Amino acid sequence: MKLSARNVLSGTVSEVTKGQTTARVKITLPGGSVITASITNEAVDALELKVGDEASAIVKASDVIVGKA
Amino acid sequence: MKLSARNVLSGTVSEVTKGQTTARVKITLPGGSVITASITNEAVDALELKVGDEASAIVKASDVIVGKA
Amino acid sequence: MKLSARNVLSGTVSEVTKGQTTARVKITLPGGSVITASITNEAVDALELKVGDEASAIVKASDVIVGKA
Amino acid sequence: MKLSARNVLSGTVSEVTKGQTTARVKITLPGGSVITASITNEAVDALELKVGDEASAIVKASDVIVGKA
Amino acid sequence: MKLSARNVLSGTVSEVTKGQTTARVKITLPGGSVITASITNEAVDALELKVGDEASAIVKASDVIVGKA
Amino acid sequence: MKLSARNVLSGTVSEVTKGQTTARVKITLPGGSVITASITNEAVDALELKVGDEASAIVKASDVIVGKA
Repeated sequence: MKLSARNVLSGTVSEVTKGQTTARVKITLPGGSVITASITNEAVDALELKVGDEASAIVKASDVIVGKA
Repeated sequence: MKLSARNVLSGTVSEVTKGQTTARVKITLPGGSVITASITNEAVDALELKVGDEASAIVKASDVIVGKA
Repeated sequence: MKLSARNVLSGTVSEVTKGQTTARVKITLPGGSVITASITNEAVDALELKVGDEASAIVKASDVIVGKA
Repeated sequence: MKLSARNVLSGTVSEVTKGQTTARVKITLPGGSVITASITNEAVDALELKVGDEASAIVKASDVIVGKA
Repeated sequence: MKLSARNVLSGTVSEVTKGQTTARVKITLPGGSVITASITNEAVDALELKVGDEASAIVKASDVIVGKA
Repeated sequence: MKLSARNVLSGTVSEVTKGQTTARVKITLPGGSVITASITNEAVDALELKVGDEASAIVKASDVIVGKA
C-alpha cells in the first residue's frame, strides 16, 4: 500500500517497551539517528514488533514542526 | 529551550513553497533523507526560512506511526 | 506493509480537490459515511489519487477524540 | 457545540481499558467497523465512559492519512 | 457534547483567512493570548465562523509539546 | 531555537504524573487556565520537569480544532 504520508524513514527496531496501554518503540536509522514512537500495545502485538526487525517510522507532513536556531 | 518532543532531526532547508495559507518546507538530513513539513505561511515568515538554512524537523513520539513489511 | 495505526477504514475516493499546497480528499465508506482528509498535493500526485479509486483512511489511535452527548 | 473537525463518526462504546495515565477506548460503528482511541484516563472519568454508551469518534482532516493499494 | 480532549480554551474569533482548501483562524483568549488554528475552508463555512464570534480552541493532550527554557 | 508552531503558551508546571511509558503534565497559565499535555516519561526526565518549573505548552496550528456553541 502506498501512503499519502510524505515521511517514511526505514531503519531497525532498537527498543520495544510496553506500558499498560501504550508502548515506546525506537527505530535506529542507517545514519545512527534514532526515532521514538509512542504506539498502542495492541499495535506492538499486531506487528509482532521486536528488536532487530526492519521497520519504518511514518510521519505526516502536517505533524512536523520546523525549528531554526 | 529544551523540548519534550523526542525527535529532533537536524538538516538543511532544501525547499520552501508557500501556498495561500499553508507552506511546504523540505529539510534534507546529512544522510540524504528528506523530511517534508506542512507549516503555516506565517511560520515561514516568522522564522525567515529560506533554502540553505540550517533547521530541525521536530516530531512528537505520539505522531510517529510504525510500519513493518 | 502492516501499520501500527489502529484505524484503517477502506472505501472509495469520492472527491479530490487540490489547493496550492494542500488537497482535500474524501473517502466514502461502504455504509455511506464520508471521511475527509487534508493531505499534500504531492501525495495526491504520488498516489495518482482520483475519484473512484479504492483507498483507505488511516488514523492513529492517539489522534481520535471521543465525544459523548 | 459545532466542531471544525470534519470527521465525526457515531457509534457505541465497546471497550474501555485504563492504563496508568492513558486509556484505550473502542467505538463500534453501526456497520461493524471499530475505531480505537487513545485518550487520557482523566477523559474517561470526565465523560464517565463505559461500555454501551453512545459516543462519537472525532478526527481532524489533517490527521487522516490516505493509503492506496 | 462533552469531549475527551483535555484542553478547551474559550475566546473570541479575531481573524478568519481562507486559502484554497485551508483556512487560518485566530482566537483571542480573555487574557490576550492568541491561538492560531489551521482548519479546512469547509469547516469555516459549516460553522459560519467570522470575526467577533465566541469560539473555543480545542487541543488533545497528546498534541501538546512541553518546552522548558 | 525559534519554532514554526504558532502556539506557545507560557506558564508554570502544576502537575507531573508518570505512568509506565506516558506522563501527564499540567501547565497553569497566568490567567488561571490549565493546559494538559501527554508526553513520554523520557521527556519528563530529559527536561527534569517538576512542579513549579516555568514551562511552555507548544501546539501546532494544524492540531487545533475550533468549536462554536
